[in-house]
Amino acid sequence: MRIALGVEYDGTDFFGWQKLSHAKTVQGALEQALSFVAHEPVEVAAAGRTDAGVHGRCQVVHFDTEVVRDMRGWVLGACSNLPRSVAVTWAQPVADDFHARFSARMRRYRYRLLPRFVRPSLDARFVAWEKKPLDAARMHEAAQAIVGEHDFSAFRAISCQAAHARRNVRAIRVFRDDIHIVVEIEANAFLHHMVRNIVGSLIPIGRGEQPVAWMAELLEGRNRDVAGATAPPEGLTFLGPLYEAHWGLPPEVTL
Amino acid sequence: MRIALGVEYDGTDFFGWQKLSHAKTVQGALEQALSFVAHEPVEVAAAGRTDAGVHGRCQVVHFDTEVVRDMRGWVLGACSNLPRSVAVTWAQPVADDFHARFSARMRRYRYRLLPRFVRPSLDARFVAWEKKPLDAARMHEAAQAIVGEHDFSAFRAISCQAAHARRNVRAIRVFRDDIHIVVEIEANAFLHHMVRNIVGSLIPIGRGEQPVAWMAELLEGRNRDVAGATAPPEGLTFLGPLYEAHWGLPPEVTL
Repeated sequence: MRIALGVEYDGTDFFGWQKLSHAKTVQGALEQALSFVAHEPVEVAAAGRTDAGVHGRCQVVHFDTEVVRDMRGWVLGACSNLPRSVAVTWAQPVADDFHARFSARMRRYRYRLLPRFVRPSLDARFVAWEKKPLDAARMHEAAQAIVGEHDFSAFRAISCQAAHARRNVRAIRVFRDDIHIVVEIEANAFLHHMVRNIVGSLIPIGRGEQPVAWMAELLEGRNRDVAGATAPPEGLTFLGPLYEAHWGLPPEVTL
Repeated sequence: MRIALGVEYDGTDFFGWQKLSHAKTVQGALEQALSFVAHEPVEVAAAGRTDAGVHGRCQVVHFDTEVVRDMRGWVLGACSNLPRSVAVTWAQPVADDFHARFSARMRRYRYRLLPRFVRPSLDARFVAWEKKPLDAARMHEAAQAIVGEHDFSAFRAISCQAAHARRNVRAIRVFRDDIHIVVEIEANAFLHHMVRNIVGSLIPIGRGEQPVAWMAELLEGRNRDVAGATAPPEGLTFLGPLYEAHWGLPPEVTL
């Protein structure tokens, strides 16, 4: 039986999503909790791997098991064996050809910046600090250049293992929310560090150090070396993937 | 010279605002940092004392000193001597008759609830968990009963040391924000546990276990014993006090 789960986490104290033999990761904690509930080893496949310090609002994973538990049992059993910073929010049986990663049609991320003279404290775990004032409208305008299908080599980490750099960005929105600048981005898939590199290039535009047209130039140039620095992980939250309705998953992960 | 400061903190790891000889408090951490910057003991008076686990967005304090530092020096000096979860966000010289507590004309709090089957994880430090669904519109309607000047004995902690229980609530708003239920309340001043007790009584109304008219009944009855339980501290943030414009403080703390 194949089961899909929604997973939420505060990534601050983890060395990222992907299991490591020598450090605490979200996948590692989740597999340990599920294995405890199943009384047998459980391995999960996730919609998106997140870097150290990056958070998850609705990560989706699947796993296969012969063990019979009701869905409430998987959710509560996992939660009671997970650290406080990780929770399984729902569980649902899925068809055998569902794959948390390959069936995902869209993925959404949110990045939050705190532009002020003084470092963050109240929300230090969840925002990236920017010492200079930022113009959200200017950043939003610049960001529209990346909407559509493009080669995103300019915003791709050197360590990225993807076969090619073409991705389709459906929407990107930059706006002011209370004291923060928020960047929300939706694409079919993302390259390694793609969101943080895009945000890192929007920052000098928001500061007025680069023209609005800079994003289009960077994209066109396909050269990672000239784009902005990778923005820090703490500002980033993986809101989650979206799947086609026929899989019958909860509304928050359905197109 | 009298100096006012804005103070922001994540209260999770503190035993509240007020200095204690035997436990870590926000006031204790702040006075230690300021004393280090001043090279002499500094004592602060605050607009509002917050309980253990309660957060501060813009707490205001004042202190007196003969030491000459520019305002940037106080801010950066304090920040570099404070733990990551506390920051001084601004400093400003004020008239000698300004008092962070007694000059405050209004105080604002925000309470956030996460109503769902599964415990919070991503925002576990900043929301209170409510296992049952809540009707925000019903809570908002019920809450309007407490607007105005009333005797708030029904929502006052036994330990409250205030001379009387009359307070003037200027506004209270309950609304849904993303996956949370948010309660925002503004009053001239608050009794001990007043916000948490009000929220604790709105919860059974939101669940449908008590009628909308229950808030008015509780207020009228002035009996703490029959009102709802005190809501947990982690959902509460002291947004800060408001002062009259003539003190010349930053816009976020000015009426």
